[in-house]
Amino acid sequence: MSVTFAQGFSAAGVVAGISSKAGKQDLAFVVNNGPLDAAAGVFTSNRFCAAPVQWSRAAVADGHLKAVVLNSGGANACTGQPGFEQSQATAHEAAGLLGVADSKIAVCSTGLIGELLPLDHVLAGVHDAYNHLDDGEHGGSDAAHAIMTTDTKPKTVALEGSGYRIGGMVKGSGMIAPQLATMLCVITTDAVVTPGAMQAALSAGTSVTFNRIDTDGCMSTNDTVLLLASGASGVEPDPDEFNDLVRQACASLARQIVGDGEGASHDIRISIHGATSEDAALACGRAIAASNLFKCAVSGNDPNWGRILSSLGTVPLDVAPFDPTRVDVDVNGVRICQGGGTGRDRSEVDMTPREVGVDVYLNAGDAEATVWTDDLTHEYVHINADYES
Amino acid sequence: MSVTFAQGFSAAGVVAGISSKAGKQDLAFVVNNGPLDAAAGVFTSNRFCAAPVQWSRAAVADGHLKAVVLNSGGANACTGQPGFEQSQATAHEAAGLLGVADSKIAVCSTGLIGELLPLDHVLAGVHDAYNHLDDGEHGGSDAAHAIMTTDTKPKTVALEGSGYRIGGMVKGSGMIAPQLATMLCVITTDAVVTPGAMQAALSAGTSVTFNRIDTDGCMSTNDTVLLLASGASGVEPDPDEFNDLVRQACASLARQIVGDGEGASHDIRISIHGATSEDAALACGRAIAASNLFKCAVSGNDPNWGRILSSLGTVPLDVAPFDPTRVDVDVNGVRICQGGGTGRDRSEVDMTPREVGVDVYLNAGDAEATVWTDDLTHEYVHINADYES
Repeated sequence: MSVTFAQGFSAAGVVAGISSKAGKQDLAFVVNNGPLDAAAGVFTSNRFCAAPVQWSRAAVADGHLKAVVLNSGGANACTGQPGFEQSQATAHEAAGLLGVADSKIAVCSTGLIGELLPLDHVLAGVHDAYNHLDDGEHGGSDAAHAIMTTDTKPKTVALEGSGYRIGGMVKGSGMIAPQLATMLCVITTDAVVTPGAMQAALSAGTSVTFNRIDTDGCMSTNDTVLLLASGASGVEPDPDEFNDLVRQACASLARQIVGDGEGASHDIRISIHGATSEDAALACGRAIAASNLFKCAVSGNDPNWGRILSSLGTVPLDVAPFDPTRVDVDVNGVRICQGGGTGRDRSEVDMTPREVGVDVYLNAGDAEATVWTDDLTHEYVHINADYES
Repeated sequence: MSVTFAQGFSAAGVVAGISSKAGKQDLAFVVNNGPLDAAAGVFTSNRFCAAPVQWSRAAVADGHLKAVVLNSGGANACTGQPGFEQSQATAHEAAGLLGVADSKIAVCSTGLIGELLPLDHVLAGVHDAYNHLDDGEHGGSDAAHAIMTTDTKPKTVALEGSGYRIGGMVKGSGMIAPQLATMLCVITTDAVVTPGAMQAALSAGTSVTFNRIDTDGCMSTNDTVLLLASGASGVEPDPDEFNDLVRQACASLARQIVGDGEGASHDIRISIHGATSEDAALACGRAIAASNLFKCAVSGNDPNWGRILSSLGTVPLDVAPFDPTRVDVDVNGVRICQGGGTGRDRSEVDMTPREVGVDVYLNAGDAEATVWTDDLTHEYVHINADYES
């Protein structure tokens, strides 16, 4: 159901001829039919942020958006003033169709960096998508397909609150790393919420979900997560429940990104336990998630705890205090490292499941954190070396 | 000639049966025949530093070493007190043969983490190597071969100063990243120098050489660089010349490591120009060198400047101030990115040479720095995923 699961939203996905893949759906349109048009957003912190990020960050600043236009087939990043004018023209076209100000339209793009979009195709695609807007399963599904690039499957979420709903879609497969770990994500709700409450929920939710996945250590220029509220349910949610559902939606979509990481054969959960603080735990988790050597070992089905410890050992003492001789590591439940040295034999670890669980016990405190990554495979290199440029 | 190029040193490399590869030379012995026994060392900053690192750091602390025993076939890392006792026993064996205190012997190990060494083979190997010590080309060459693991070739250096010499050997191919970017390195000189002057020269030299290469972002538990002086030339060197030659020796050996990075098909030089400080330039260079996506693109012979900019854009503003719209990028001399956007067509770049030069112009100041890395290839994944564990 994707973004149309929440009441008050319609969506479409069309073949606009932006992507080099003939016949691929490559333009999505998501419209908030109200009565509210409340919105919040978080964006990449990359200093070379793309034109659509610059446009959309300004558009959502007042807490209101009527619609979002998203395209695959081109990132419109590092394209200077002409690129910014393309995002502006796209918003203008959608605004004209909907009878709202240009600043009520967010624009998101994904694809190759450094090339302008075929603007005439984009604008014609906006018209076509407008004519195909649908508030049912079809519209939401088409939109989720249209934003895919190297993704192998659409990624959506649908959650029921107490009298209101949250839906969402995301795309992301490569160039995934904090901050912010996704490419394009739109989450919708029919709850009656204020932009301020939405921004708080979204910032808190993304910080422990999208910002804790890392498929390849590479931060994108185009990452965007938008939360739109139509208020169509008429229900004012309990704030705690709403925050929790937004976090769950982010967690589900982030997990789906890891599950579809470029070339991945294993999804790797890395949980750090017994740290002196959550930040310390996070730093340790990120260090392991960034290790190409460990990620290669997992793709070869070896629970190589030496590569876990050698990555853990790069975290400075002042960031994460712990005693190396007290560190234990379980992989898929088997304690293969005990007290910083050899534990049970690694042949006892069953590495056949797609999901691999790494639990590191620092035995230094009570804080913990979990990050997710993928293994590093031949296929990842193939996708990112042997593509057509 | 390796470590025996400098007068006053003898060396050997023998088959001790430590490595799982039958018949591989796997134990090296380097002896300083004096008259001096001055020494300096730098070691990994990894908190899970290996037993031989713990032993050797203490041994060299007083500025004097008589000899170094090095083995491939096992890292003796994360092996606890039994591992430390193995390093100690190895030093004791060598010290007995040479008639010196145990603390005059450094020990270095490389190979898999988390397993003890076959100590009887190591001790017998020390005896065997002692009986084969040679101060000519043969001894130095055998030692350089004996420390190899996934290295495809021995890596040595020989430099002439004004009346004195510097020689050296290094091994390193994977798990190469600051700080410190090598596995095992021994540099020798017959100059008459003090331990303090040697430590200063070595620290300065490694900081701009070994600490500026990054083949795979993974810091080892065993990195060791030792500098030994015999004083056999009788020449007290000009301090500036000596410092410069030590830096040159480190640079040559570090460059050879990059040239033999696991699975690499390209060596990549990344030079950052026009930064506000050397630290700023270094942070930018390291960010690009750490990008799996860029490294994959290079292995596919695509000078993908979008992946250069997206990595550069992750460097925080307070670390490296620059204006993204003023950044230019040359790859192999072709300005493919101009002012943060598209420059000349990337098809103009000749990617056939093994060495790829990336020059990034921040246009923000006068400082610069260069780092080296390798491309990320199918073969890297193969070596690190499909090995026998």
